[in-house]
Amino acid sequence: MDHERIVILAHEKFPGRAKTALGVMRYGDQDVRAVLDRDRAGERVRDHVPDVSDAPIVGSFGEAHAAADGDVDALYIGIAPIGGGFDESWRSDVEAAIEAGCDVVSGLHYFLNEDEELAALAAEHGVDLVDVREPDDDLTVATGASGDVDADVVCTVGTDCSVGKMTASLEIVAAARERGIDAAFVPTGQTGIMIAGWGNPIDRVVSDFTAGAVEDMLVEVGDDYDLLVVEGQGSIVHPAYSAVTCGILHGSMADGLVLCHAAGREAIHGYESFALPSLPEYVDLYEGLAAPVREASVVAGALNTKDVDDDEVAADAVDAFGDAVGAPAADPVRDGADGIVDGIVEAGLGGETVDK
Amino acid sequence: MDHERIVILAHEKFPGRAKTALGVMRYGDQDVRAVLDRDRAGERVRDHVPDVSDAPIVGSFGEAHAAADGDVDALYIGIAPIGGGFDESWRSDVEAAIEAGCDVVSGLHYFLNEDEELAALAAEHGVDLVDVREPDDDLTVATGASGDVDADVVCTVGTDCSVGKMTASLEIVAAARERGIDAAFVPTGQTGIMIAGWGNPIDRVVSDFTAGAVEDMLVEVGDDYDLLVVEGQGSIVHPAYSAVTCGILHGSMADGLVLCHAAGREAIHGYESFALPSLPEYVDLYEGLAAPVREASVVAGALNTKDVDDDEVAADAVDAFGDAVGAPAADPVRDGADGIVDGIVEAGLGGETVDK
Repeated sequence: MDHERIVILAHEKFPGRAKTALGVMRYGDQDVRAVLDRDRAGERVRDHVPDVSDAPIVGSFGEAHAAADGDVDALYIGIAPIGGGFDESWRSDVEAAIEAGCDVVSGLHYFLNEDEELAALAAEHGVDLVDVREPDDDLTVATGASGDVDADVVCTVGTDCSVGKMTASLEIVAAARERGIDAAFVPTGQTGIMIAGWGNPIDRVVSDFTAGAVEDMLVEVGDDYDLLVVEGQGSIVHPAYSAVTCGILHGSMADGLVLCHAAGREAIHGYESFALPSLPEYVDLYEGLAAPVREASVVAGALNTKDVDDDEVAADAVDAFGDAVGAPAADPVRDGADGIVDGIVEAGLGGETVDK
Repeated sequence: MDHERIVILAHEKFPGRAKTALGVMRYGDQDVRAVLDRDRAGERVRDHVPDVSDAPIVGSFGEAHAAADGDVDALYIGIAPIGGGFDESWRSDVEAAIEAGCDVVSGLHYFLNEDEELAALAAEHGVDLVDVREPDDDLTVATGASGDVDADVVCTVGTDCSVGKMTASLEIVAAARERGIDAAFVPTGQTGIMIAGWGNPIDRVVSDFTAGAVEDMLVEVGDDYDLLVVEGQGSIVHPAYSAVTCGILHGSMADGLVLCHAAGREAIHGYESFALPSLPEYVDLYEGLAAPVREASVVAGALNTKDVDDDEVAADAVDAFGDAVGAPAADPVRDGADGIVDGIVEAGLGGETVDK
């Protein structure tokens, strides 16, 4: 999956409900030539999102292709309806992309490769349908090989789902590179995979292979970088998703952890009867669970303050969070992740370019 | 899956390398009419295994069927080669069973239902091929409903794989029933499922649904019993399998934990560079990880002393284990599980028949 010039489908949802589209635009290396949103055709990306490259918003793939002078490698599905189904109103755009020789990349639960019409059309035109939620079929159990890679490994871990672990991971990589650290992002979820262009969707892997699927990625790239930042998932105290979290923690054999939290969150999102433990309890739980496989400390904290309007209140929340976690902290979106990289570097992680 | 009279296939491996066959014979409710082992044809089960019901050992399904006067519901595959493949030398027996109107039950990685010849033959004869390693396709994420079932829930948890969690769970259920506690076993692995006749193979479930697949089982039977004993898998410190362990722990929302260990084990089996933590550390880890989802203490310990020859040495090991765990302990095979049930009852678990 290596696409330089792409079009992103975000019909009726750009930008507010197009999380995958925005993630790719903000963090991906791809050049986004156009966004498809039939409700905003004729507008521009910059009219809505100031901090990404500008591009036209158009109503159909045909218009996008024309606007890009035909210079497009792939169509990315940048939105996901509840349930992850395929919206039939997208079919004409997907077909037009295939007929124009473009790959189609999707993170939907509905696999494009299992759609007989699309699969036949793709075969006819020699393009790939990439279902990023479908795990490789050659995954197996972990062997402990993650501990042997050259790179130092940092894993983002959360107090809950949807606290910003992917964003924190990507911002940490960006801030580390700014300092000259040869860092890379290791994706574990569908949006991260679409951004990075590779990776295993850990939540879709057979539970016996959870750690193995993480190890598979670390072994693949672990000798090419000085610092790997593994995108965490869920939370170790989540009533439904803790298995995924635990598999990533042990599979990554991380050298350091970055605890991610959303300011004001007091109970598990969607499971409100489950109160969050205190922050020091999280630190103890994650460090205690990691230790028998690989000693790892919480070296920094990432606080998501998007629900806090006032900058000063947000800054105070970040300070209090850092105190509770006992490590440097920042809001990676509001402040950038430089303060988080401080904690990583202070822990001696990040390779030869860094004085311990 | 409800078979009263069965034949078990264990060619060339009975009894020493036929773990599933022995598990079904020892703990299943099924009446085993014959064992297939072409190397021991003409011998009897009792010649080799004293503590299970006797049955003839024969060389082929045809002979077994004749020996049972045709009164057979199913053929169970009671052995698994390394890798879990299907041995072609078994095909004639499987075909003969199908042609005799018997279901075939298998815990192999190789799914009988994906074998076109066997699937066609089964359809022709109106019998079921039951692949117990194939999860239900309607599983989903946990909701926290395990916390609402009427039964008290005990989960066996391990210091490692292969320490006897399934056996401990089954022996606990047997000992609890002896005391008049209405107890049931909740299987999570293929042998447990073949013994119990139902269940989800948790290690084969998509990692996002690990806890949900456990919850699914508890909700199904949780109001019909006073005590459920959930078969644990792996270990929370296992470099490869901890995700499965964590999903079962949180998915079961257990009220009490039974820590299972094998005497003398000092490192993770097959991962010898990973030393086991101390027993008190295991207690802290399991209790600490359980608490945010459901408060649960280690209420008893199960020590597997099969590698200790001397009874007195074994008894001393059990005593020392109980002291380290801080709870009543027993070797459920050597001593029976009554001492373990003591711990469960002392913790107030097991329903109205028990004085707290």
